[in-house]
Amino acid sequence: MKQSKFFMPTLKETPSDAEAVSHQLMLRGGYVRQVTAGVYSYLPLANRVLSKVSQIIREEMEAIDSSEMMMPELLPASLWQKSGRYDSYGPNLFKLKDRHERDFILGPTHEETFTEIVAQEIKSYKRLPFSLFQIQTKFRDENRPRFGLLRGREFIMKDGYSFASNYEQLDQQYEDMKNAYLKIFARTGVEVKPIIGDAGAMGGSDSLEFGAPAAIGEDTIVYTDSGYAANIEMASSYFVKEENNAPLQDVEKVATPNIKTIADLADFLKISEKDIVKSVVYIADETPVLVLIRGDQEVNEVKLKNLLQVEDLRLATNDEQFELTQVKAGSIGPVGQNFAKEVIADCNVQNMANFVVGANETGFQLKNINLNRDFTPDNFADITVVKEGELDPTGKAELKFTRGIEIGHIFKLGTRYSEAMNAKFLDENGKAQPVIMGSYGIGVSRLLSAIIEQHHDDRGILWPKEVAPFEVHLIQMKMNNDEQTQISEKMYQDLQSKFEVLYDDRAERPGVKFADADLLGAPFRVIIGKKAAEGIVEVKNNQTKEAVELQISEVANYLKNEIG
Amino acid sequence: MKQSKFFMPTLKETPSDAEAVSHQLMLRGGYVRQVTAGVYSYLPLANRVLSKVSQIIREEMEAIDSSEMMMPELLPASLWQKSGRYDSYGPNLFKLKDRHERDFILGPTHEETFTEIVAQEIKSYKRLPFSLFQIQTKFRDENRPRFGLLRGREFIMKDGYSFASNYEQLDQQYEDMKNAYLKIFARTGVEVKPIIGDAGAMGGSDSLEFGAPAAIGEDTIVYTDSGYAANIEMASSYFVKEENNAPLQDVEKVATPNIKTIADLADFLKISEKDIVKSVVYIADETPVLVLIRGDQEVNEVKLKNLLQVEDLRLATNDEQFELTQVKAGSIGPVGQNFAKEVIADCNVQNMANFVVGANETGFQLKNINLNRDFTPDNFADITVVKEGELDPTGKAELKFTRGIEIGHIFKLGTRYSEAMNAKFLDENGKAQPVIMGSYGIGVSRLLSAIIEQHHDDRGILWPKEVAPFEVHLIQMKMNNDEQTQISEKMYQDLQSKFEVLYDDRAERPGVKFADADLLGAPFRVIIGKKAAEGIVEVKNNQTKEAVELQISEVANYLKNEIG
Repeated sequence: MKQSKFFMPTLKETPSDAEAVSHQLMLRGGYVRQVTAGVYSYLPLANRVLSKVSQIIREEMEAIDSSEMMMPELLPASLWQKSGRYDSYGPNLFKLKDRHERDFILGPTHEETFTEIVAQEIKSYKRLPFSLFQIQTKFRDENRPRFGLLRGREFIMKDGYSFASNYEQLDQQYEDMKNAYLKIFARTGVEVKPIIGDAGAMGGSDSLEFGAPAAIGEDTIVYTDSGYAANIEMASSYFVKEENNAPLQDVEKVATPNIKTIADLADFLKISEKDIVKSVVYIADETPVLVLIRGDQEVNEVKLKNLLQVEDLRLATNDEQFELTQVKAGSIGPVGQNFAKEVIADCNVQNMANFVVGANETGFQLKNINLNRDFTPDNFADITVVKEGELDPTGKAELKFTRGIEIGHIFKLGTRYSEAMNAKFLDENGKAQPVIMGSYGIGVSRLLSAIIEQHHDDRGILWPKEVAPFEVHLIQMKMNNDEQTQISEKMYQDLQSKFEVLYDDRAERPGVKFADADLLGAPFRVIIGKKAAEGIVEVKNNQTKEAVELQISEVANYLKNEIG
Repeated sequence: MKQSKFFMPTLKETPSDAEAVSHQLMLRGGYVRQVTAGVYSYLPLANRVLSKVSQIIREEMEAIDSSEMMMPELLPASLWQKSGRYDSYGPNLFKLKDRHERDFILGPTHEETFTEIVAQEIKSYKRLPFSLFQIQTKFRDENRPRFGLLRGREFIMKDGYSFASNYEQLDQQYEDMKNAYLKIFARTGVEVKPIIGDAGAMGGSDSLEFGAPAAIGEDTIVYTDSGYAANIEMASSYFVKEENNAPLQDVEKVATPNIKTIADLADFLKISEKDIVKSVVYIADETPVLVLIRGDQEVNEVKLKNLLQVEDLRLATNDEQFELTQVKAGSIGPVGQNFAKEVIADCNVQNMANFVVGANETGFQLKNINLNRDFTPDNFADITVVKEGELDPTGKAELKFTRGIEIGHIFKLGTRYSEAMNAKFLDENGKAQPVIMGSYGIGVSRLLSAIIEQHHDDRGILWPKEVAPFEVHLIQMKMNNDEQTQISEKMYQDLQSKFEVLYDDRAERPGVKFADADLLGAPFRVIIGKKAAEGIVEVKNNQTKEAVELQISEVANYLKNEIG
């Protein structure tokens, strides 16, 4: 492609409203433009990268016999009513009506749509297992779209679905998909950590997230040097129940006027935060639940939600708490409470003795509280947010934190959707069974951001070879030099038959051309300059910044060796 | 791909609700499934054909230096308010609100979006001309979606836009695009007629439609053997104004009680319909217009709308007519009327004398009416629907009619959008000028239907080579025959490296396999049957139905020669 005919509007200045480096570079390089908040146009450069990423995905999916198809984006509400998600998905779901006032949504994901077609078409175990995928525009009405393509309202996903007649088949499909994903990310040049993910949101069991370490990432990846890795929402730390031999002291009610925080309470009572049990009131699908957690720890709402198996979980407001307990927040506690249907304590509370809790009387706390003697929770479970430096669940390695971008996620869905939507097949014995499903996503447009976050310098993008918009950037230094023009045109014709080449034939100063070339970030640059008259051109590797001078006739072979 | 792992749910029976052959065959062959009215899922077979068609489009666009990019589908209403189409586009526009109650649409076409980005990014004539395209899902809330992919509510389009600094550049871009379109359609195997199209709807001047002749087509293509071709909405027939020397007779008012139709009126008065002038009342952007047309002819509303240059044109209702005239429909006429702001007469009225019109008095007509003496229209113009057998505009060839499917449409838009959206560049003299645009569409999903309408027999689809979902269908007759399995597997490995192969490895009877193979319609079929033991297999051309027996070792070369 000749750059004079190519639409690549670069910017000299970094746009002030772009926080993420990837967003800045995509704007400056003429890769994307925002049309409205969280909604972008992919200009030709971004489109070329998207095509390459998509092609890699297609090849790796084909290698595991997953077939591509394409579902609609406009979906009848009835499909999502069947699964229950029409109501439970929340305000991120775009809803609309057609001219006949029938309800539709714009698909943010397609479990229902694929389950429905399998329900209609697959009748026998003989047609299972198989899997399908699509690369498609998705819609999610994010409250705060940001960071360019990292959190958009319209974005491109690869979403895949597997269908099996038994769990061994599902395990195999899940394993194949995991390996294919690792190959895909390796080919796109992005470093990923496969981490334990939250399967709860999709209603399934196992799940694995693929997190690309990057400072701008919105996720915290928890990992150890010995291989443990989990999303902070799912990470656990070492816990063993200890025998507690401390003598149980007598309960004592103390006034704690104007004490608002756990830190203040510990100071006031001259104890450690670890000797306090916080009482937190949640509303779980409209039912109040009392959650108990050690004073220095925080409730992990994802773990709690998965434990309670509810659709909706939120903190009670101060008003709700007061209405339920007649006590001001801070003085609520488990002893003698009767407002909560269920009391859940974090497992670490099991190792505590003679601790402090709210007295269920505004401005008072109880000291020397003990489990079983004074109250008994309905359930102990791991519901804390882990902290950096704690030991991992094996107790052998220290947890480390890093920021990451979620670029892929695979789930064992089991029968969550097939049961809700009556997708059944007849097994070997002629008995109807729900299809066993998996779901497998890659954030395709988000992957672009992740690649750039990991591959850039202060002048532009350093594209990995397999996903670069062009492999070779051919730059003619002076457009009014006939010799250079002749050599460049010939070089362009030759290289174009072997590589993807952008030929900068614009009547611009070399400085402008080089600045744009930095922003574009093709892996190799061929510069036709002064020495062209002597038959010599410069070839520069954009990753290593190394440049070599070559005879014109050597260029194609040199690039062939480098690019492969 | 092994068919046992491929999702291709075929149907034995023709679905009763599918009228179009292409729709029937796509359902029966497991190509598509309806999700809701006018909204389809493209199963793996259809997806493969769509990919091939898209690839052909990409190659031919690249050959004319048009770059691919991707605009959003979710568009802020403000973009369409700028162009005026938010209100004028009508009920086919899907409208929705986001969580912040801001107005959005789902894009049915993208003139505004492309104009906007060019307005923002292109400042100088030096960056012009260039062109951009995308292959994208579009949305149009059709009142009556039908015929499968022919008239859907969610569909795939290639839409392209060109930008130029002068009309010579636009003419060249239009010409390049026309030639590229002809190549694209030729490669997809579809026969097309480039015909004069209606540019009015897009607000431009010249336009060319690409119509694929097919019985199910909703368009009528008017053509002659000597090269004239137009959409019936745009077709003209021969007209020359004649000298009229008939003596003007005296006006006479006649009672015509209970006469409802032109035919009845002609009978009653014992005259030809050609001696009557019909008066038709239209509401054009809320203004009443009186349209006069010869009794045996019909008003062409597209021509009329383009003539009046209005956004909205419709017939007045009987109630509206009565309110305007105090006369019942059928008795309205041009003589002495004062309700219509404008009176438009078809050009053929110019050659009439002593004709009959409504008397503007319920139940009466006027005889012996003549132009100029009795009334004078504001304008004469070609506003009739042509009829088969009339002469074409040159007067030399007879008009013929055929049904067609519109699969492409190119427009010279001029400055309709750039002026509305202030997309200006500085010309050589530093003067701001509106960008000169063209717009170029292909109905990609609709093209699938058109190909099938033109390429099928009573058993299935006969795919042209370049767009077939698979080039070779390898069919093993008996799955429990080890020799056949060994030969088939080896043949599959070999052919797969050279062609796109579907290997029917299902444990099904040969009858089932052949019926599915007919529905699938791959250009070549390789059948591993009884003679495989002797090293002989059958290769069948699905277009010609000719079969040859070949040595196993000859198959790849034979196919190489045939497929190329």
